[in-house]
Amino acid sequence: MKKILVQKYGGTSVGTIDRIKAVAERVIASYNEGHHVVVVVSAMSGQTDQLIAMAHKISNQPDEREMDMLMATGEQITIALLAMAIQERGYPAVSMTGFQANIITDKAHTKARIMDIPTEKLKNELEKGKIVIVAGFQGVTETGDITTLGRGGSDTSAVALAAVLKADVCEIYTDVDGVFTTDPNVVPEARKIDRISYDEMLEMASLGAKVLQIRSVEFAMNYGVTIHVRSSFNNTPGTIVTREEADMEHVVVRGVTYSKNEVKLTVMGVPDRPGIAATIFNSLAGANIIVDMIIQNISEQGLADISFTVPQNESQKALQVIKGLVKEKLGARQIICDDKISKVSVIGIGMKSHSGVAAKMFDTLANEGINILMISTSEIAISCAIESKYTELAVRALHDAFGLDKQVS
Amino acid sequence: MKKILVQKYGGTSVGTIDRIKAVAERVIASYNEGHHVVVVVSAMSGQTDQLIAMAHKISNQPDEREMDMLMATGEQITIALLAMAIQERGYPAVSMTGFQANIITDKAHTKARIMDIPTEKLKNELEKGKIVIVAGFQGVTETGDITTLGRGGSDTSAVALAAVLKADVCEIYTDVDGVFTTDPNVVPEARKIDRISYDEMLEMASLGAKVLQIRSVEFAMNYGVTIHVRSSFNNTPGTIVTREEADMEHVVVRGVTYSKNEVKLTVMGVPDRPGIAATIFNSLAGANIIVDMIIQNISEQGLADISFTVPQNESQKALQVIKGLVKEKLGARQIICDDKISKVSVIGIGMKSHSGVAAKMFDTLANEGINILMISTSEIAISCAIESKYTELAVRALHDAFGLDKQVS
Repeated sequence: MKKILVQKYGGTSVGTIDRIKAVAERVIASYNEGHHVVVVVSAMSGQTDQLIAMAHKISNQPDEREMDMLMATGEQITIALLAMAIQERGYPAVSMTGFQANIITDKAHTKARIMDIPTEKLKNELEKGKIVIVAGFQGVTETGDITTLGRGGSDTSAVALAAVLKADVCEIYTDVDGVFTTDPNVVPEARKIDRISYDEMLEMASLGAKVLQIRSVEFAMNYGVTIHVRSSFNNTPGTIVTREEADMEHVVVRGVTYSKNEVKLTVMGVPDRPGIAATIFNSLAGANIIVDMIIQNISEQGLADISFTVPQNESQKALQVIKGLVKEKLGARQIICDDKISKVSVIGIGMKSHSGVAAKMFDTLANEGINILMISTSEIAISCAIESKYTELAVRALHDAFGLDKQVS
Repeated sequence: MKKILVQKYGGTSVGTIDRIKAVAERVIASYNEGHHVVVVVSAMSGQTDQLIAMAHKISNQPDEREMDMLMATGEQITIALLAMAIQERGYPAVSMTGFQANIITDKAHTKARIMDIPTEKLKNELEKGKIVIVAGFQGVTETGDITTLGRGGSDTSAVALAAVLKADVCEIYTDVDGVFTTDPNVVPEARKIDRISYDEMLEMASLGAKVLQIRSVEFAMNYGVTIHVRSSFNNTPGTIVTREEADMEHVVVRGVTYSKNEVKLTVMGVPDRPGIAATIFNSLAGANIIVDMIIQNISEQGLADISFTVPQNESQKALQVIKGLVKEKLGARQIICDDKISKVSVIGIGMKSHSGVAAKMFDTLANEGINILMISTSEIAISCAIESKYTELAVRALHDAFGLDKQVS
């Protein structure tokens, strides 16, 4: 039986007619190697923004069902053009919208989740020898409404299709060569990672690496889909994201990430009595705000300062929630909002079996004179909040300290 | 039971965000009069051309299925934006693509014909009190492929929906006030026609009037749908297109049309023997070329000239067909191609019971010194081919001779 290959091309890779033609060549090359090929594409870069701008000239808060109806046209344009480009070169291709490919989602417009993908139609077309081109980012509800999957949704479409089609690999084509040990713009010595586990990739994505969307990695992990992240501009092998392998543990730390989109909120001078922290964090949770790091200091007799970080785009909402509590329920003196905060993280499944990673991280930052404001940890990651101005220095120092610039066999 | 109103807005009427907002106001006004309202829209003017241009950068002859996939996005954008504009004003609206509205067509991509429109979903939404906005021009095959209906397809979508929903009237909104006795740009005295029969409207559309597409009129006639052609820029009543009524016959001639898109081909010096004309016109029919007017003159001893007109966009194809025949089968001397030809026509169901219309037409043209090159007639129309330079003069003279500038009670 022929192998099934799923390829996903992002908005930059199909951003112009010439790039669509280049993608056609690449797809045909894979087809000529004897694979069944399913291609998932995003909207041409810029198109989505144009559509959003039109909607916002009509309404500040457009209806989400209608927004999905509008946005879905972006990918529909790309699939038609790519199919034409492949056919123009003499190869059989057929495009499919979300509803034609049976990508069934729940009803959560603008952030829908894939529920099921009956594959009969897809497989029929593959059996006919066709290259199947599916619109990413979109799906359809059981009642026939068009939905979209939210940011990075095309990655998720591709991984989900790879899962249901039992594809050998899901290739995610992007504008970089793969997943790097850290941001090469900050650390020129950053190396491309050849193989990485789902868990590590999830932490990397959560903690600032932008190359893959978190949801698509979760999906891949749940369904055991091997992802190959690679560049659409060259033929260099990229990064394989797969289940944890025995030899992966030899590397203690896999990568260093950073995020500048953090805001630290400090509630000053709250009474140091049971239930105060619970009041704050229950209220934030009730407003769907995800709090990351938390620290509490006793400041004066019986009074405490509670600090926590939230993503930048939720800081205003968090501030409103806290302000609503301050006087009546907390009796706090004031709230301080600090957006000059970054988070640096080291990630690696080797941490599970190796101690001393945290100590080495703290030492490294201390040696550079960088003050650690807050700490959070998971089984395979340690994060420190630091002043923003030290971000690049911290990332370089950590990358060096953990020897990430050295080739691993 | 509430009345159902179908309204169709063309590309110019929804050509900008501001115009979409104006359409929303007009739709809401009808809704507030207590009607169920179904709105059919075209793509924003210019958008279709942009999509075609993209496709042609990829292929000179793009696959028709993929072309339909591409083109269908134009209307999908408009329905989403119009739904948002209506919702923004506090009214319930829901948009539907061709597949969501169940507009089932045959498989003839780029020129599909509507086969059926099961109305359950549409009626459900109307019963919920919603304004339903349907993408014109597009449909879906029984196997889920997206199709388009060809030029003027949105008019046909609207009339077909009016037919299956048993709507009281199908309002076609356009950028003119209705159907006129002739082109007001040529004859300033041209009057808007208040009521016109399907047959007359069909002849008017076939013979050069551009306001309604022929297929939509055929559809309306077959299903008894009353059409109201009116302007989207004012509230003046337009033209009602409906079945023949007793008092319509009082008017002998309803309108004068002209077409400059005619080309006359003359095959010179063919032997005057049986079967020659059949050879020519069978070959043209075999190439799907529609011949309009035909004339044959005996020129010299035993030799004839055969002239006929074809639409301009088919003249090159016709020329090729004839050239292929000339030497071997016809033994003709030469072919003359004349594109400085126009056709002027007078139309009216009153002709059925009134004689003398043809004579009056020929007299009128003769009085202006205009030579009649060819003649064709139907039950309710007479057309003459004349030299192009006389077109406007002929139209004005005929409009005046048949008293079309005078108000009819």
